[in-house]
Amino acid sequence: MRLAELSERSGVSTATIKYYLREGLLAPGRRVSATTAEYDEGHLRRLRLVRALIQVGGVPVAKAREVLAHVDDDSLGRTIRLGAALWALPQGPEPEADDEDEDEAVSAARHEVDRLLEMLGWATARELGALSPVHRQLVVAVATLIRLGYPWKAELMAPYGDLMHQAAVRDLDFVETHPTEAERVETAVAAAILFQPVLKALHRLAQEEESARRYGL
Amino acid sequence: MRLAELSERSGVSTATIKYYLREGLLAPGRRVSATTAEYDEGHLRRLRLVRALIQVGGVPVAKAREVLAHVDDDSLGRTIRLGAALWALPQGPEPEADDEDEDEAVSAARHEVDRLLEMLGWATARELGALSPVHRQLVVAVATLIRLGYPWKAELMAPYGDLMHQAAVRDLDFVETHPTEAERVETAVAAAILFQPVLKALHRLAQEEESARRYGL
Repeated sequence: MRLAELSERSGVSTATIKYYLREGLLAPGRRVSATTAEYDEGHLRRLRLVRALIQVGGVPVAKAREVLAHVDDDSLGRTIRLGAALWALPQGPEPEADDEDEDEAVSAARHEVDRLLEMLGWATARELGALSPVHRQLVVAVATLIRLGYPWKAELMAPYGDLMHQAAVRDLDFVETHPTEAERVETAVAAAILFQPVLKALHRLAQEEESARRYGL
Repeated sequence: MRLAELSERSGVSTATIKYYLREGLLAPGRRVSATTAEYDEGHLRRLRLVRALIQVGGVPVAKAREVLAHVDDDSLGRTIRLGAALWALPQGPEPEADDEDEDEAVSAARHEVDRLLEMLGWATARELGALSPVHRQLVVAVATLIRLGYPWKAELMAPYGDLMHQAAVRDLDFVETHPTEAERVETAVAAAILFQPVLKALHRLAQEEESARRYGL
């Protein structure tokens, strides 16, 4: 398809598409003449992902380029390739202190997270440990709870871990319905950005529903 | 306890506590002399909640005051009281268009969300419908998926709805372990802010774990 059609099908203006091409977020089309290039379904898919990253996820252009480089790096195993792409996304608040002088709350949180992962039997999560930014995020989130004086125990958390594992199984089943490896990685990254708000709203709606069932309106 | 002890136990500086008192986010202590006031466990709990709202949730002071007014309004039924407090929290992106001229994606999203709630048997969520900001948020999040060309079907979503309902049952069970109604509402609001990052990190960690189980590292 030509640029005009790519723009119409994606809902992205031709000016923005040209900007993405210049910034290297979208691979050049196949040249068919000095002034025209031909684009395919792969370009359309990539354009959707770029919009998800930049317009919805608020990811800066340079970061988006980094994420896409990992998506395209087929020298990596799938878990690492996907992990690298997702880890390159902005990760939310970092721990306030360095590991060297981490405070009591962070130590306590790290301990409870370790116990939790052991209870859940998440061997890779334990093995990767602090190598994974997501692991670090979990420790930071738990440390915040502890610092504010809210109780946080692995026992309380384990059932939520099980529920999230069931969700993850569904996530990957869905990703696997896509035929090519490139589409799978792209879908997983898009889902990580776009699906989070859906899940969050579903959770809150379920709380309202359950509250109404127990106590009325 | 005196102001100094309240500060020490809460980890909030006396200057900040005085600021919260001036702003009406914290009820005055019981005057014991012209220059001293006595604070109790209720003040400590409230101080934790105020920190959760302002420092962690990034809620503006005026908004926090509104949330706390709902928390304290015992003329309301529990679902509405809690709902009002949570609904007063900043809700993330609003729909871009008015209901009057909502675009195709929003109509399609509304239709799929209706079907989803029917499949899940969430009667209150259906009844409250657009009255609930959370319902609106879900529609907006789904409309974004549709606008970007990602498939979104109620059938695909329903199992996630069930998982989130199981999480909500646990949430409310936990809230009910607190003895007083005031503590219950406070805990529910704090959990809504502080627990979201924990659940998000758990979900991503579960995805890494499941990916490693299926494909190795």
